[in-house]
Amino acid sequence: MITSFHPPVRTLMGPGPSDVNPRILEALSRPTIGHLDPAFIEMMDQVKELLQYAFQTKNELTLPVSAPGSAGMETVFANLLEPGDIAVVCQNGVFGGRMKENVERCGAKAVMVEDEWGTAIDLNKVEDALKANPDAKLLAFVHAETSTGVRSDAKALCELARKYDCLSLVDAVTSLAGIEVDVDGWGIDAIYSGTQKCLSCVPGLAPVSFSERAAEVIRGRETTVQSWFLDLNLVMGYWGSNTKRAYHHTAPVNSLYALHESLVILQEEGLEACWARHARNHAALVAGIEALGLSFVVDIEHRLPQLNLVRFPESIDDATVRNALLNSYDLEIGSGLGALAGKVWRIGLMGFASSEKNVFLCLSALGNVLRAHGLDADPAAAVIAAQATLR
Amino acid sequence: MITSFHPPVRTLMGPGPSDVNPRILEALSRPTIGHLDPAFIEMMDQVKELLQYAFQTKNELTLPVSAPGSAGMETVFANLLEPGDIAVVCQNGVFGGRMKENVERCGAKAVMVEDEWGTAIDLNKVEDALKANPDAKLLAFVHAETSTGVRSDAKALCELARKYDCLSLVDAVTSLAGIEVDVDGWGIDAIYSGTQKCLSCVPGLAPVSFSERAAEVIRGRETTVQSWFLDLNLVMGYWGSNTKRAYHHTAPVNSLYALHESLVILQEEGLEACWARHARNHAALVAGIEALGLSFVVDIEHRLPQLNLVRFPESIDDATVRNALLNSYDLEIGSGLGALAGKVWRIGLMGFASSEKNVFLCLSALGNVLRAHGLDADPAAAVIAAQATLR
Repeated sequence: MITSFHPPVRTLMGPGPSDVNPRILEALSRPTIGHLDPAFIEMMDQVKELLQYAFQTKNELTLPVSAPGSAGMETVFANLLEPGDIAVVCQNGVFGGRMKENVERCGAKAVMVEDEWGTAIDLNKVEDALKANPDAKLLAFVHAETSTGVRSDAKALCELARKYDCLSLVDAVTSLAGIEVDVDGWGIDAIYSGTQKCLSCVPGLAPVSFSERAAEVIRGRETTVQSWFLDLNLVMGYWGSNTKRAYHHTAPVNSLYALHESLVILQEEGLEACWARHARNHAALVAGIEALGLSFVVDIEHRLPQLNLVRFPESIDDATVRNALLNSYDLEIGSGLGALAGKVWRIGLMGFASSEKNVFLCLSALGNVLRAHGLDADPAAAVIAAQATLR
Repeated sequence: MITSFHPPVRTLMGPGPSDVNPRILEALSRPTIGHLDPAFIEMMDQVKELLQYAFQTKNELTLPVSAPGSAGMETVFANLLEPGDIAVVCQNGVFGGRMKENVERCGAKAVMVEDEWGTAIDLNKVEDALKANPDAKLLAFVHAETSTGVRSDAKALCELARKYDCLSLVDAVTSLAGIEVDVDGWGIDAIYSGTQKCLSCVPGLAPVSFSERAAEVIRGRETTVQSWFLDLNLVMGYWGSNTKRAYHHTAPVNSLYALHESLVILQEEGLEACWARHARNHAALVAGIEALGLSFVVDIEHRLPQLNLVRFPESIDDATVRNALLNSYDLEIGSGLGALAGKVWRIGLMGFASSEKNVFLCLSALGNVLRAHGLDADPAAAVIAAQATLR
């Protein structure tokens, strides 16, 4: 007989999900109401307005897709691309590769611009690819690569897209609310994110937003979107304004309560203050990590404050350390992916998890575990170094 | 400034979402852990085992899709069909029509077998269609039509599919846990359901199960599944056993806590006892509704106990009554769809909402509202009639 599941209480400092604010967990458990209830419709309008704030946009076509971030990625590609289209796709980590998969499954052609994992997207290479492919319909890139902790220059990439008459398509899964994302200011045409990173909400929803130019492309498609579930021409019957809300699918009511609460919290703190908090705690972590004798993978100017790639000595066994952190300290940090597997940790300081408390916990616990495994690491010195940056 | 959203406390007796058991809401709000946490992986194994119990199957390929029921529908079609395939699709309500949409978006051809809304699927017509289309790959039908409250003979339809060497594909969104669903006993090849109906869980997940025969078809595809997110060849890297769990997408961790709890509750009650409870409360509602002078749309033998289509007199305005129920009694019932719009209500008695308490509330509130709108209805007599069936 299987009984109720009671999860351990972890501190989540991996690449996501990140720690969820207790206010959001409480909102999640409020009584379920109907997905066409007038009270729910009113809440949906607020979610839309709050997402517009988070994305810094006036885009009418702004809504949360009822599925995880990967489905958000699929939503933007499946709605914007038609068979035979050409998309220029930048890849400097795992998620650029996933974009390629999506492009090809839409029957379109992906022209890849590849950069080494751990480095930012090279603007010159992108411009060359756009020049060489004058028929390209869109330029797609990852703003904050979750697999490598790298920030690319989204503003400049969007300018390039516009210069070569392409739509710009941005993965902001890890960037939204952690660093600046300015949809209208940068002229982003299509963007998707996830709820489980810097929004500190539970995983399962994918906020998306489309410029009027992109919405026009969707409305003017010659072929039907291959996915019924993700077809925005249908979804908008439910999420659009100025229409009678038409049933499309049953919205994930309670998850939307949680997203609403997470966005209310973001609005209370303010976007700029939220980015500043991420930057401050990142600086403290950097000082502490370096005091432990470890190093960062990514150049200072391209480092994400919310996702830190830390290189460890070859003498250290990755899984042993992560298991010790989980078992002795209930602390989750992430492993490396692809070429970086077994060589780096990914330490997240995302949303609610971006706190001084977590920086100290991580440095103390990691320092203790490294010492126990023979490394000459001083956790106390690491905490002192971190504290010094916070004064 | 937008503030926290506090939903009204409703009683949900529409076509879903249904009332969520407070135990499930509490489970939903437990602390989020990582989607690769060993504790979470263990819970996933239990969810799979519990779903096998709910579906009455030993199918290895049994898991919850990380999106609502509509995505469950898309998952089965997108994985089983390839361009050029032929699918025989039964339509006797809204959801057969949605199946057609899905078939066509897979590049396959849908041969439709249509029956009048409110009636069950005609086995003779289906057999004729299967005879006329010897190349058909699958037979798809809705077991319990949420739009009409009709139960079709799933066992006989699966036998027909096997006789004509087709895969059987079953929509069990509204049937699972409300009436008998016997995946292995009936030889169902592919089935999907939702969490927000008789499982009384929050909306947002779609349990699916595939027979070994269907799994073989998926593994042997010549073309790639058009959806990356729903491609089971990839999803199984995360949900499959005997493999290192590979990251595909971030699982909706908290929603899965809720599904786990709802399935534990189902197992505690027992499938047969759960069906019997649905049948008992349905009988009570029928007696009461008829005592109010209203009638049922569907023949007795095809009525779903969990979803009751009630016809009301032309003198009654649909929206006025439903709004009065919502505003005065916090009671949600559903409106009719398609040809039945404005003529019927859909009264759900699903899962946790299938209780004597709710039957009495519904009869009392509906009786009062109908009286207030000039109908000669006696709520007290309705409650007495309902109680009589429960002795």
